[in-house]
Amino acid sequence: MNDAVKLGLIGLGPRGQWLLNTLLEMDEIEIAAICDKDPGFNSLILDKISKTENKLPDVYTDYNDLLARQDISGVIIATNWVTHVDIAVASMKAGKYAGVEVGGEASIDGCWRYVRAYEETKVPCMLLENCCYGKNEMTVSNMINCGVFGEILHCECGYNHDLRKEMMELSRNRLQVNMHRNGDLYPTHGLGPIAQMLSINRGNRFVSLCSMASKAAGFKQWLADNDSEHALASYDFVKGDVVQTMIKCAHGETVLITHNVSAPRPISRLNMVQGTRGAYSEEGGGVFIEGITKGDSWEPLDSYHEKYAHSLWKQFEKGGIKGGHGGMDYLVMAEFAHIIREKTEAPIDAYDTATWRAVTVLSEQSIAMGGAPVAFPDFTNGKWVDRK
Amino acid sequence: MNDAVKLGLIGLGPRGQWLLNTLLEMDEIEIAAICDKDPGFNSLILDKISKTENKLPDVYTDYNDLLARQDISGVIIATNWVTHVDIAVASMKAGKYAGVEVGGEASIDGCWRYVRAYEETKVPCMLLENCCYGKNEMTVSNMINCGVFGEILHCECGYNHDLRKEMMELSRNRLQVNMHRNGDLYPTHGLGPIAQMLSINRGNRFVSLCSMASKAAGFKQWLADNDSEHALASYDFVKGDVVQTMIKCAHGETVLITHNVSAPRPISRLNMVQGTRGAYSEEGGGVFIEGITKGDSWEPLDSYHEKYAHSLWKQFEKGGIKGGHGGMDYLVMAEFAHIIREKTEAPIDAYDTATWRAVTVLSEQSIAMGGAPVAFPDFTNGKWVDRK
Repeated sequence: MNDAVKLGLIGLGPRGQWLLNTLLEMDEIEIAAICDKDPGFNSLILDKISKTENKLPDVYTDYNDLLARQDISGVIIATNWVTHVDIAVASMKAGKYAGVEVGGEASIDGCWRYVRAYEETKVPCMLLENCCYGKNEMTVSNMINCGVFGEILHCECGYNHDLRKEMMELSRNRLQVNMHRNGDLYPTHGLGPIAQMLSINRGNRFVSLCSMASKAAGFKQWLADNDSEHALASYDFVKGDVVQTMIKCAHGETVLITHNVSAPRPISRLNMVQGTRGAYSEEGGGVFIEGITKGDSWEPLDSYHEKYAHSLWKQFEKGGIKGGHGGMDYLVMAEFAHIIREKTEAPIDAYDTATWRAVTVLSEQSIAMGGAPVAFPDFTNGKWVDRK
Repeated sequence: MNDAVKLGLIGLGPRGQWLLNTLLEMDEIEIAAICDKDPGFNSLILDKISKTENKLPDVYTDYNDLLARQDISGVIIATNWVTHVDIAVASMKAGKYAGVEVGGEASIDGCWRYVRAYEETKVPCMLLENCCYGKNEMTVSNMINCGVFGEILHCECGYNHDLRKEMMELSRNRLQVNMHRNGDLYPTHGLGPIAQMLSINRGNRFVSLCSMASKAAGFKQWLADNDSEHALASYDFVKGDVVQTMIKCAHGETVLITHNVSAPRPISRLNMVQGTRGAYSEEGGGVFIEGITKGDSWEPLDSYHEKYAHSLWKQFEKGGIKGGHGGMDYLVMAEFAHIIREKTEAPIDAYDTATWRAVTVLSEQSIAMGGAPVAFPDFTNGKWVDRK
């Protein structure tokens, strides 16, 4: 093992705390500094770290002070979604790799700021989309690359995660976004892996999207049933409970994204891939490959992991899976540490960060205009046609 | 059993032949006349009937001659999709109940013609949508009416049926539509039951839709792999392989419809219902009911049939399921015979026929305009607000 890279962790709310569980397990990373504007969170985290064998990090309440340190080579930004870009830009300008937690952007200019800061500074920015390192996603991606599904026609993905209780009791920031904004507020867990499968920004790109939102009744029903004295019990939420977005790609593929965090159903990223010779469906429970799958039903993906699992996963499983969310959190952080150590570009770079997070903005715009198609900005400014 | 109603069967191609298998089993219906412009089909059917205990029907090659008969009280129209409306209008004008097989319309005026003919003649027109009589659909519909899922937010449905081989070898009419038109060509199997669940044209209505189509590569790949000398081997099909349509309803519900008949995957109508207290997913394999379903996965619908199966199905199963498509074909035809015998209105009436079949036209329009939202005509002319 090489020396650990020294990182700062900015944002110590629920997301930062969750990530820390994985980061503290990792030999590849040393959290040398932590920062939250809330001193209470800083104390909580210091206390937590003091119970491990890790060195105690220095503590900041202003991220500019953390970014001024010379010994830190990158930061992990786990603050509110709308503050990610400010800190990422400051980080790149300070010469530190910007590891940006997932979220959706609030303006197209916000998306461009990742790109502009990267192009000005040449300091990489990586969206820390853990689902791009999910075992199933990586196996399916490998199967696509091996041509198992033929030519890809259509993909689906989403974020179906019933967060009603969690938002009411814990995730105040998320709740506020749901109170006020109507769009796909959290598109990247589903879209990230799909964008990679479709070579978006590398020979393909998203050209337009249309979105629709259902009525908003989920939170109100939940409060009526579970917490009728809550301050929001009669609040009319702006975000529709089920938001769907259809994207058209330059090479004719279509993508459907679903966002649903306020109605009861099993958790799912709804991954689906339809090709000319086969298909994969997370919801259906597996794959269907022409001439191979018997009968007219899905075949478990499990039987394909041995042949098609990504080498990263094969190695990971051999050494024992570590970290949260079934290992994905570990893998994405290990990759971030790797690119810093090797001083290379990010596999999910500033262009991808801008593109994936733009879905939130564009879906809001489309919904506001009754589902009208909205053009996707080309954040690569034409470079997508021959980027690798 | 009452006397059988005397019907004519118009259109004896693959669909008419399929229906006949069920019709010949039924005591409720006597096929007194058959009609196809192709004498070969007429002979084939006569020969088939002569091998049963059924009376031999009279044979016509012009449906106007069949409609001129006094002893026939209704017709079943199983011709090409685009000719359904001509024959349905002629049938209503001849005073005969028009039983219209499923399909999509090609113009909005075509949709209005069902409505105008019904309003002028008061002779009912019924879309023979067998899937409205599917066991699962009827159970789920009943569960909605019992409030099991809470307030309904969003529904999904579709027609995922790999017909590449069948279309290339048998269903020439369907193939031609796929060659030339880009839209959801066959929306009603999925949409019919969902429209009933959402009380469309009875206190609710579809207000707008947006559609997108993927590239078209499925047929070409299949021909390359299976029949490379076929006349269409290098033909560029107009219809995208996966077409998706998002509909917005007057009361804020959203509906997603998928059409995919040219790529390999298991057959599915993709029925999904999301309410504030629970959900149903055909693809997921069952229901999820808050406070009842244990864990975070779908529970088989089977365990709910006993409590929530529609009375029609309970009775049907007691007597032994008859007819094609798992009994649905029998039930829809029995319902058609029933309304004729009772001289009552159709449960799937001219307004529903127009509305459901309009999705084909509107989806073509939206796709042609890059996914732009298209307004749904109100075929009830405002009567939906208090129709039962």
